[in-house]
Amino acid sequence: MDYQPRPDDILPLLHGVLGAPAQLQALPPFAEADADLQAQVLEEAGKFVAEVIAPLNREGDETGCRFEAGRVATPPGFADAYRAFWQAGWPALSAAPEDGGQGLPAVLEAVLYEWLAAANHGFTMAPGLLHGAYECLRHHGSDALKARYLPKIASGEWLATMCLTEAHAGSDLGRVRTKAVPQADGSVRLEGSKIFISGGEHDLTDNIVHLVLCRMPDAPPGPKGLSLVLAPRVLDDGTRNAIHCERIEEKMGLHGSPTCVMRFDGATGWIVGEPGQGLSAMFVMMNSARLHVALQGIGLLDAAWQKARAYADERRQMRAPGATGHEASLIAEHPAIARILDTQRAWIDGARLIAYRTGLQLDVARHHPDAKARAAAQQWCSYVTPVLKAACTQQAFEGASACLQVFGGHGYVREWGIEQIVRDARVTMIYEGTNEIQAIDLLVRKVLPDAGAGFARTLLALRDELDASRESDADAQRRFAQLRYLTTQLAMAAQAAPRLPYEVADDYLRIVMLAMLAWAWCRIEATPGATAAQAASAAAFRRWVLPEFEMRAGIVKKACEAVIAPVAA
Amino acid sequence: MDYQPRPDDILPLLHGVLGAPAQLQALPPFAEADADLQAQVLEEAGKFVAEVIAPLNREGDETGCRFEAGRVATPPGFADAYRAFWQAGWPALSAAPEDGGQGLPAVLEAVLYEWLAAANHGFTMAPGLLHGAYECLRHHGSDALKARYLPKIASGEWLATMCLTEAHAGSDLGRVRTKAVPQADGSVRLEGSKIFISGGEHDLTDNIVHLVLCRMPDAPPGPKGLSLVLAPRVLDDGTRNAIHCERIEEKMGLHGSPTCVMRFDGATGWIVGEPGQGLSAMFVMMNSARLHVALQGIGLLDAAWQKARAYADERRQMRAPGATGHEASLIAEHPAIARILDTQRAWIDGARLIAYRTGLQLDVARHHPDAKARAAAQQWCSYVTPVLKAACTQQAFEGASACLQVFGGHGYVREWGIEQIVRDARVTMIYEGTNEIQAIDLLVRKVLPDAGAGFARTLLALRDELDASRESDADAQRRFAQLRYLTTQLAMAAQAAPRLPYEVADDYLRIVMLAMLAWAWCRIEATPGATAAQAASAAAFRRWVLPEFEMRAGIVKKACEAVIAPVAA
Repeated sequence: MDYQPRPDDILPLLHGVLGAPAQLQALPPFAEADADLQAQVLEEAGKFVAEVIAPLNREGDETGCRFEAGRVATPPGFADAYRAFWQAGWPALSAAPEDGGQGLPAVLEAVLYEWLAAANHGFTMAPGLLHGAYECLRHHGSDALKARYLPKIASGEWLATMCLTEAHAGSDLGRVRTKAVPQADGSVRLEGSKIFISGGEHDLTDNIVHLVLCRMPDAPPGPKGLSLVLAPRVLDDGTRNAIHCERIEEKMGLHGSPTCVMRFDGATGWIVGEPGQGLSAMFVMMNSARLHVALQGIGLLDAAWQKARAYADERRQMRAPGATGHEASLIAEHPAIARILDTQRAWIDGARLIAYRTGLQLDVARHHPDAKARAAAQQWCSYVTPVLKAACTQQAFEGASACLQVFGGHGYVREWGIEQIVRDARVTMIYEGTNEIQAIDLLVRKVLPDAGAGFARTLLALRDELDASRESDADAQRRFAQLRYLTTQLAMAAQAAPRLPYEVADDYLRIVMLAMLAWAWCRIEATPGATAAQAASAAAFRRWVLPEFEMRAGIVKKACEAVIAPVAA
Repeated sequence: MDYQPRPDDILPLLHGVLGAPAQLQALPPFAEADADLQAQVLEEAGKFVAEVIAPLNREGDETGCRFEAGRVATPPGFADAYRAFWQAGWPALSAAPEDGGQGLPAVLEAVLYEWLAAANHGFTMAPGLLHGAYECLRHHGSDALKARYLPKIASGEWLATMCLTEAHAGSDLGRVRTKAVPQADGSVRLEGSKIFISGGEHDLTDNIVHLVLCRMPDAPPGPKGLSLVLAPRVLDDGTRNAIHCERIEEKMGLHGSPTCVMRFDGATGWIVGEPGQGLSAMFVMMNSARLHVALQGIGLLDAAWQKARAYADERRQMRAPGATGHEASLIAEHPAIARILDTQRAWIDGARLIAYRTGLQLDVARHHPDAKARAAAQQWCSYVTPVLKAACTQQAFEGASACLQVFGGHGYVREWGIEQIVRDARVTMIYEGTNEIQAIDLLVRKVLPDAGAGFARTLLALRDELDASRESDADAQRRFAQLRYLTTQLAMAAQAAPRLPYEVADDYLRIVMLAMLAWAWCRIEATPGATAAQAASAAAFRRWVLPEFEMRAGIVKKACEAVIAPVAA
């Protein structure tokens, strides 16, 4: 069964709960993007994903990418599908009209990528990297570079890569050694090796634009010495640049996407932005890239859920407790299976609400006429994006594994495609910053420096959307208060024990996610037209998912008390 | 890095904490099996596993098994390794001397299989199935069948299978349709198809002995109509029996073990035990088979831990909080990584203690001169085995995934072998009864029928081993009391809501495991000679693992209160 995008699952959240049409139309570039237009875009996106992209998923896994003599062949059908994809204008959906884009909201692109990843994660890696390169070049590229590369990247006619990691420099990019030597003509020569380069080489497009993190001569050691260089596979005169794919990795999953070892052998490139500003040039697009990874997680989980749901509604084994008659029951009627399915459904729609809200905030941060509103939206994205990235990708892997369990032994074999999702999903916990890095980013780099004051404002905004006269809303509000208290405790404890926040950063991130999910389910339930299925998801969330909040809060509290109790006493 | 069995990790638990030598030597068949002999057996087992079995693991995954024209080729080296394995007497380690076995304790065989699975899970599947077949035939086979097959199975010269599952009959074996038609000469003719048959066909041994769950003509529907039939691949006269391997499955992992679709096409067989007693004949060996799966889980987790530990002690990235100097720190010094490693270590050794105790109880249940002692040991196994099977296999998968995370992107590629462990481990949550079935077996079939009275006796025995004057022991004792209370609540709630125990069976099983782990770490810490590393594991267990107890207890309590509060009021 191929993945089926379901706009009917999305619109009640995006339009019904979040009121996206009004929010977006208040932003000048989207004044015309009314509810109908948004719905129509999603309708078309869903059709394209279902008809063109989803059917290639299994072949992408089984055949995978082939490497021979420096060339990479993508799986059968990928090149044609990619051509149809860019020619239909999908990569340019949210690109600026002046670059040839359609100028539509980022939140619609977010939904598109959720579906793409759900339908075919391997395929999605190729266009997925375009958007970061586009933002990066748009904000930091020289006019000459932009004139030559931006329209081709915006349209997706050329694909792009982010060449960051080296063998000894993964989470610690400050150790990058690739050298960029300036030339008299203003170009640079690149020398070095990069690993884990998704789409470093392939047969999908005529050219590939590499953005390479590197070091100029005499640059200081560490992250401040890094620069960003653009180096295309094919130069303007049609010759091949000195960029070589040495091999592709054998991976646990994601076989549809070539993960390349790239060697730059005196390759010609041009610096993007200022020397020494390489990391900050890249960080321009970090929030949107991490949001996309979170949405990959949600999409993959939804794909796993669709498969498990269909299987559970068809397979019969044993009589469920309370079943009458002699026939074996559908396994969906067995409580353990129902619990798995309800729990994952609660994760999917709750996380969607937070992710789409974050997508909207990305649009607000870019386009709101008021600087204060832009700053507040930016702050939302800064806090919430690492939470979504880590929590949604962890749930993608664990929830897909739970869905696999629904199939019993049939889940462990290829036939049903569920084990592929588990293998594919695993990488999302690692790339674009490991989940441990996300947790440290949230707690240590963002929340603690002002002792949680800025974060409290973001939470307050959520709290005020709830209606304390409803029991579940009051419960969610109490959780926000508890989170605020824990944050203060952590800020104090961190003074005495600098390692402590690093030890409990994962717990803290989970607490934040669970509190936000609690908010999400209150909001969904309170929206007119909420369905019985949504009420069931909300109940499943509160019974089976939310109790983790107290567990994690207890871990953090205990860790703090071990350190600051003596001070208080 | 291949897996390294470490007797020095095992003996302090088996001999130091559990006092296995005295316990075993009190059993007549093991009077001579003193501490030295036990240690020597493990020393030799460890060497064999390290030298012969572990080096074949990666090739087993990458090349896998090949199917052609009804024949299965196992991966390169497997056939030679298996010959060396049985000729060295390892399959016969705990088989009875009268069957040609060495008559050693089952608990030593348990350790051997833990190591085998850790070193090469795929290979281990082949001999792993022998022991169930041996027990089954030994207890239920006719003298004629035993004479022909038992010695060859005991020695491992011939391998065996358990042919249970059919396409429509997985967890629900009562739906099995394979037919056995009696013949005039006392044999039966088998007709039917089986799926998921590990080692159904291979090139490791001259003959394969299939034990086939089937239905005699006129048998009643459901589980009571099932019989067990022995059917060899090669008949006594040297002709091939009408048993065909139709294909092997493409799986997520475990590529070293062929998972076969088998067709019985009028195959000749002989009934084992009485007609209609097929399931109970099989259940003879269920506890020991499930304990072996639990030990596979522990072994796989230890294998993942060894890899992650070695990598974390070598790889440098960024300075850890509090680190001095300019050099990047070992990642082992980063708190998030240290937490992963310490947590898995705590699981491994805590679970080992419970598993080895269960292995000893298997020996007591078989060999103690006193019937009451045998019955108590049998009861221990009956309660604890499903807990170990589910909890250890879940931890194998989740913990191996946590260890993969230590490698960052390097964990997702094949190079370090860690992703193979995650893929291989996933099946252990499914086979030999899914983990959901284990939880139902524990709570619904075993604990609740006498409202927890029998189970309370087992827990009481553990509680009495603790020393309430120590804080952590007193804490563990309180958890046993809480567990007892929850059991009573559940027994009451189940009257009002029959579905409820099925909904929370997984939580209940986890609570039991966590309480037993709390007991285990108290016992390890209280044993003379306990090391600083063990104290660190105990601390990690209490900080990071044990808090799940309250979470699960809260879920169960709340579920009960929703049902029985009205009764109490």
